[in-house]
Amino acid sequence: MRTEFEFIRNIKEQYGLNRVGDDCAVLPKDSKTDLVITADLLVEDVDFRLRWTKAEFLGHKALAVSLSDVAAMGATPKWAMLSIGVPKSVWKGKFIDNFYGGWFMLAKQYGVELIGGDVSESTDKLVIDSIVVGEVAKGQAVLRSGAKPGDSIFVTGTLGGAAGGLELLESGLRTASAGKEKSRLIERQLRPNARVEMGMYLSKRNRANAIIDISDGLAADLHHLCEASRVGAEIEIDRIPIDENLDGTDRAAKLKFALGGGEDFELLFTSDRKTFSGSKLPPITRVGVVTENVGTLEVIDGERRSILPAFGYRHF
Amino acid sequence: MRTEFEFIRNIKEQYGLNRVGDDCAVLPKDSKTDLVITADLLVEDVDFRLRWTKAEFLGHKALAVSLSDVAAMGATPKWAMLSIGVPKSVWKGKFIDNFYGGWFMLAKQYGVELIGGDVSESTDKLVIDSIVVGEVAKGQAVLRSGAKPGDSIFVTGTLGGAAGGLELLESGLRTASAGKEKSRLIERQLRPNARVEMGMYLSKRNRANAIIDISDGLAADLHHLCEASRVGAEIEIDRIPIDENLDGTDRAAKLKFALGGGEDFELLFTSDRKTFSGSKLPPITRVGVVTENVGTLEVIDGERRSILPAFGYRHF
Repeated sequence: MRTEFEFIRNIKEQYGLNRVGDDCAVLPKDSKTDLVITADLLVEDVDFRLRWTKAEFLGHKALAVSLSDVAAMGATPKWAMLSIGVPKSVWKGKFIDNFYGGWFMLAKQYGVELIGGDVSESTDKLVIDSIVVGEVAKGQAVLRSGAKPGDSIFVTGTLGGAAGGLELLESGLRTASAGKEKSRLIERQLRPNARVEMGMYLSKRNRANAIIDISDGLAADLHHLCEASRVGAEIEIDRIPIDENLDGTDRAAKLKFALGGGEDFELLFTSDRKTFSGSKLPPITRVGVVTENVGTLEVIDGERRSILPAFGYRHF
Repeated sequence: MRTEFEFIRNIKEQYGLNRVGDDCAVLPKDSKTDLVITADLLVEDVDFRLRWTKAEFLGHKALAVSLSDVAAMGATPKWAMLSIGVPKSVWKGKFIDNFYGGWFMLAKQYGVELIGGDVSESTDKLVIDSIVVGEVAKGQAVLRSGAKPGDSIFVTGTLGGAAGGLELLESGLRTASAGKEKSRLIERQLRPNARVEMGMYLSKRNRANAIIDISDGLAADLHHLCEASRVGAEIEIDRIPIDENLDGTDRAAKLKFALGGGEDFELLFTSDRKTFSGSKLPPITRVGVVTENVGTLEVIDGERRSILPAFGYRHF
């Protein structure tokens, strides 16, 4: 069965869609500014489970996933729309008010204005489509396709936490009954943060040549970036920054979470630079290098060199 | 239980949302142009039924409902996004390809470019969020709130057809087994057209003071327009243009379809002018007048004058 990525690639080719395929589409605004726009669909029991989360967390996450896409273009988020399909049982209670409460709390943090959307009934599952529009200096949106051989590959923050949290939730654990580390992992899954300021920083002075946000997992998203840039990559497995709350987990599981898990919403980017430092920056780790080996992603693990499969999360 | 309209009104007041509440939100683009943007969520078994429609029709309708919102601002549609949540059973077959086929057929007609969206799995129902962005000359977007006492009230085309078609579908009829008139009613429900050119025409030279598209029914949408404009209205029942394919239907049913049915996607607008004519224009009928009687909508039926309730379709 074809994957969603294959499907999108086909539609793109069949209908000649030039603006499809990055974290956001770029539209012209005025002589100094471009717009970026993204949509993210969250479906109950596929992308979230009501019994695992809180309304406020879900509202926060619905906006955060789209802010992350805007950050991955180096843009500043400005406006948002929210379409929700709500089952009658959910509509009756306070869930939706609290959902919007969580949404607006995050929106306020970044000055994002809700300008529209749709509210509809749904039969039995909650569905959310989150749309965010951002602005970026003309021609300065950072695409997935700009990576060049020789670039260093960086990731912000740490990886694997969201997938670790998901596994805990699947095992039946909830924040109330979990210890400190486990609660943090669970919250990372349910209430992720987007690297909004970092995205804005990276689009200035050509600091990054290519950016993608890590929503499908480091492996899958590095594949997406390399495919768009027509390059290859080498990463050093021991350089991958792993969420410290996974310290009690064995190495194989940590790497599975970090490479294949997804939903960490960190930024993966390439740059001419070798280091980044600044008191306002999050941790930034150099994990590898872009190569001329188009389509080949290699992992260096001590003396061993192997091919990195794109085993990130796939919807289909 | 609160309605979706009450909910949106509350959210709007609670969070001070100035751009929410019209057919589209208006955003500044450049010194000559504004952008308009709309999102419409369609949920299986609430807004459509797969056994009643065809994939091509559904793709067409998903775009048409948003084009209608853009038309109701007097804007020109330019770009679109499409988020779809697809059950595995639907994903396996040709449905989605044909859905996009219908979508692109209509998009091509108006030069609308697909720039993004999302494709996700859903558990059992198909959900579609349709987003369209349009352009309009600076300050020329036609809001719901511009109607003035003394304005004439007009509707384009004819009303009631879509609701008549829906009733036929609910009774078990399908186009293949229906006669010519009934097939047309059913197609009006399943494959509606948006008044795109008419919207663009109305925003020029201040031809319209207020526009709304008729998606919830003439009664409900006239209420929305009057509420936004803080005016009242009088309409003459016998002037309402009824879909000719309803000729065999009794008067009460026709009026129920036209006033309460919705989904005709005609434009309802107010103007200083008393008449509109032009070879390229669709039929335009003057159905009443805007009054100073804030919030009071009256229907004149021969000698009888009565209050028009907002009995259009409500999601909740």
